[in-house]
Amino acid sequence: MGRLTVDNINPHVVEAEYAVRGELAVKSEVFRAKLRKGDGQDLPFDEVISANIGNPQQLDQKPLTFFRQVLSILENPQLLEHEDVLLGALGYKSDVIARAKSLLDHVGSVGAYSASAGVPAIKESIAKFLEKRDGFGADPAHIYLSGGASAGVNTLLHIICAAPNSGILVPIPQYPLYTASLSVLNATTVPYYLDEANHWGTSLETIKDAHAKAKAAGTDVRAIVIINPGNPTGASLSEEEIQAVLKFAAAEKLVVMADEVYQTNVFVGKFHSFRQVLLQLQREDPTAYGDVELASLHSISKGMVGECGHRGGYFELVGFDAGVEEQIYKFVSITLCAPVIGQCLVELMVNPPVAGDPSFALYDREYGAIFRGLQERATALYEAFKEMEGVECGVPQGSMYLFPTIKLPPKAIEAAGKEGRSPDELYCMRLLEATGVCLVPGSGFGQKEGTLHFRTTFLAPGTEWVGRIKKFHSEFMDEFR
Amino acid sequence: MGRLTVDNINPHVVEAEYAVRGELAVKSEVFRAKLRKGDGQDLPFDEVISANIGNPQQLDQKPLTFFRQVLSILENPQLLEHEDVLLGALGYKSDVIARAKSLLDHVGSVGAYSASAGVPAIKESIAKFLEKRDGFGADPAHIYLSGGASAGVNTLLHIICAAPNSGILVPIPQYPLYTASLSVLNATTVPYYLDEANHWGTSLETIKDAHAKAKAAGTDVRAIVIINPGNPTGASLSEEEIQAVLKFAAAEKLVVMADEVYQTNVFVGKFHSFRQVLLQLQREDPTAYGDVELASLHSISKGMVGECGHRGGYFELVGFDAGVEEQIYKFVSITLCAPVIGQCLVELMVNPPVAGDPSFALYDREYGAIFRGLQERATALYEAFKEMEGVECGVPQGSMYLFPTIKLPPKAIEAAGKEGRSPDELYCMRLLEATGVCLVPGSGFGQKEGTLHFRTTFLAPGTEWVGRIKKFHSEFMDEFR
Repeated sequence: MGRLTVDNINPHVVEAEYAVRGELAVKSEVFRAKLRKGDGQDLPFDEVISANIGNPQQLDQKPLTFFRQVLSILENPQLLEHEDVLLGALGYKSDVIARAKSLLDHVGSVGAYSASAGVPAIKESIAKFLEKRDGFGADPAHIYLSGGASAGVNTLLHIICAAPNSGILVPIPQYPLYTASLSVLNATTVPYYLDEANHWGTSLETIKDAHAKAKAAGTDVRAIVIINPGNPTGASLSEEEIQAVLKFAAAEKLVVMADEVYQTNVFVGKFHSFRQVLLQLQREDPTAYGDVELASLHSISKGMVGECGHRGGYFELVGFDAGVEEQIYKFVSITLCAPVIGQCLVELMVNPPVAGDPSFALYDREYGAIFRGLQERATALYEAFKEMEGVECGVPQGSMYLFPTIKLPPKAIEAAGKEGRSPDELYCMRLLEATGVCLVPGSGFGQKEGTLHFRTTFLAPGTEWVGRIKKFHSEFMDEFR
Repeated sequence: MGRLTVDNINPHVVEAEYAVRGELAVKSEVFRAKLRKGDGQDLPFDEVISANIGNPQQLDQKPLTFFRQVLSILENPQLLEHEDVLLGALGYKSDVIARAKSLLDHVGSVGAYSASAGVPAIKESIAKFLEKRDGFGADPAHIYLSGGASAGVNTLLHIICAAPNSGILVPIPQYPLYTASLSVLNATTVPYYLDEANHWGTSLETIKDAHAKAKAAGTDVRAIVIINPGNPTGASLSEEEIQAVLKFAAAEKLVVMADEVYQTNVFVGKFHSFRQVLLQLQREDPTAYGDVELASLHSISKGMVGECGHRGGYFELVGFDAGVEEQIYKFVSITLCAPVIGQCLVELMVNPPVAGDPSFALYDREYGAIFRGLQERATALYEAFKEMEGVECGVPQGSMYLFPTIKLPPKAIEAAGKEGRSPDELYCMRLLEATGVCLVPGSGFGQKEGTLHFRTTFLAPGTEWVGRIKKFHSEFMDEFR
């Protein structure tokens, strides 16, 4: 063989698409670096707004004080030789010190590898959290700590997909981790469209249809992915929608992968976990539902925690075969263990201060302020979109995103074609160049033929950047009218 | 399909072997948990010694104070509001605060995602380190931060292997990450044996032979892995050995993957980086060596840093095609970014305090004590092995391991066969059950047919556990004589 080139390396990697950090994101970083160097005189903006990635602490979100105080001690346990200083001049509360001691007792050093599936005591904390959240006990033996939910998805897809015709039902639009990972694994994405007219909910008919068509085409459909609350859609599923998916999965013997990383980002109604709904169904009818295999994933990256740079998360398994779990253990052990400080953050997330604890008042205030801030920004953005010509957007329900439909004039679609871009890509590129605001075109997540969207986070502070989008939009529409 | 079972999940995962955390490691954790619960009255030992995993801080190695003081501030930047307390009661030096401020300036929050390939300023620090180490400048654009070197290996193998007949030359014995990853990827391991008689060095004749045989069998050999200093062997390669490998790689157009995570663990001679030797060859003869593709990997997990729980590392590329690097960028972007606090530890590792800095004296004392401690333990273990019947071990040269040969009596080999184990596995299992000392049998790394070994780290403190091994060994030999 000669040198490595795009034509002879792994074709499945080459095929994979991951727009969230693609050309637009790269270009936005070039602009940011230029501005940082004081070298952006030719740019028509003086700040880049990264509304393309759900990266809370890059923008306005502050870390929760209790969490970070505990981590400061975990990183430097010598601080415990100065408890008086921590409690006095530094204002740490006693529960910060107690938690740090307890974690250090279980972890040893955060610089040491943990057991492959995670620190046992942290898995026990997660099990208690699941029991409290769902009303059904959990067994730590079926919990696996991971480097963010992404690493968990990677593990599960590696196990489930056995051959190129192994198929996974994936919602469209979707977070492109799924299709990208399936490309790399050389397995088959079986897309099912979400129902935009119904708040981007899951339509059982559509799922059945997609499943039947894939089976007819020879695909061995093995699992269904649900992202709830939705990314990029922001949808929050009802208990009935979840039941319908689980019943279908039981009937068709599909593994259910519930990506629930946005479970605390819910503005309308309440979050229902797949686990809770499944275990309730199993209680009512063990024969019909006793065999369902469910993997549900959670993460420290999103919600009010927002600690994505720490790469922490976990997945819990219900109903998996013991031999399969052994293989999962082996697979995660090859990558040694999830970052231990991230595992400790998972423990803090699932076991935060409660009423009566010295740190509770501050924790509660910070948590509530972040939640309200997100809701207010989502609403402000939604109101702005309502006023924009050809833009339609549902009421914000959850997650960190809005995913409006845009209708662009035929001339814009023609111009995009000439540039070899999809029209929503052209729109987002022009927006970035004109305003410094970076969005992701809907084509990066998948969308129905003939429709156009973009995804924006509502993490950036203020409304000035929303005004920039409005102004750009009206000029863009005029240009191509 | 029915439920997932070992018979229908991904066969390539099922085929993968990873002994370092296999049956023995699992059993040792069961013993440890028993002892922790005060429930180990039936065990003939009161402590488990994990000599199976290179996990410095699980054992005796303390983190470097300067590093952890900086991290405590990165985790809780509010500490900077109390600089007087940090400098006064807590005894932080001014360079700790300055470094923390500078990292925070570049990183923002350690809870935010960084750029996919890592924080730009940290890549610049690594480039400066490479220039200082090798005498040749480096370009940050070709440096990729990773979650430990393992994640880097995973990325590179994913890119290089294009089909089941894509072959990678892997040293035997080897750290089993390589064969396990190649199994999962459904690519071909092309083993080449290291030369035990020559301090486990690389023998060019053996490599040529392995390469020619694989090519004749239809394997498309694409790369050669070298682990230097060696794992599990502890070997430290000479400049001539490295040149020979590079010349062969240039002639055969093989990508060179240099796993150099033990570069500071060298007791005999001095570490030579593949990068330095390659760039020197290129300077002397650009035509012959200008096209060589080299990926070299480093990590915070080993050496005097020993921060494996933080999952940090990087790889640097020389001579890769720009289009291939774009694919590498895309691949790493799918997993978002390496843990940011681990990236900061990489920065500290490559840019530690130097003479004249306020923290230098303590850093230097701690670093030196760890180095000397490792060397002393390695020597003590080596001396003990010399006294054991049928055990032969080379002088400790580097890394964290000794890998002695053991000659077991025919009756032991027979007994192992009856248990369905390899003889070295039987030996290690019996040792664990009798003494609580956990080693890894040589079969977990690969060894020449008919030879037997085990790998032990020399991280555990004291010599009492070495005495336990000696006593067990003589009893084992007597039992099967």
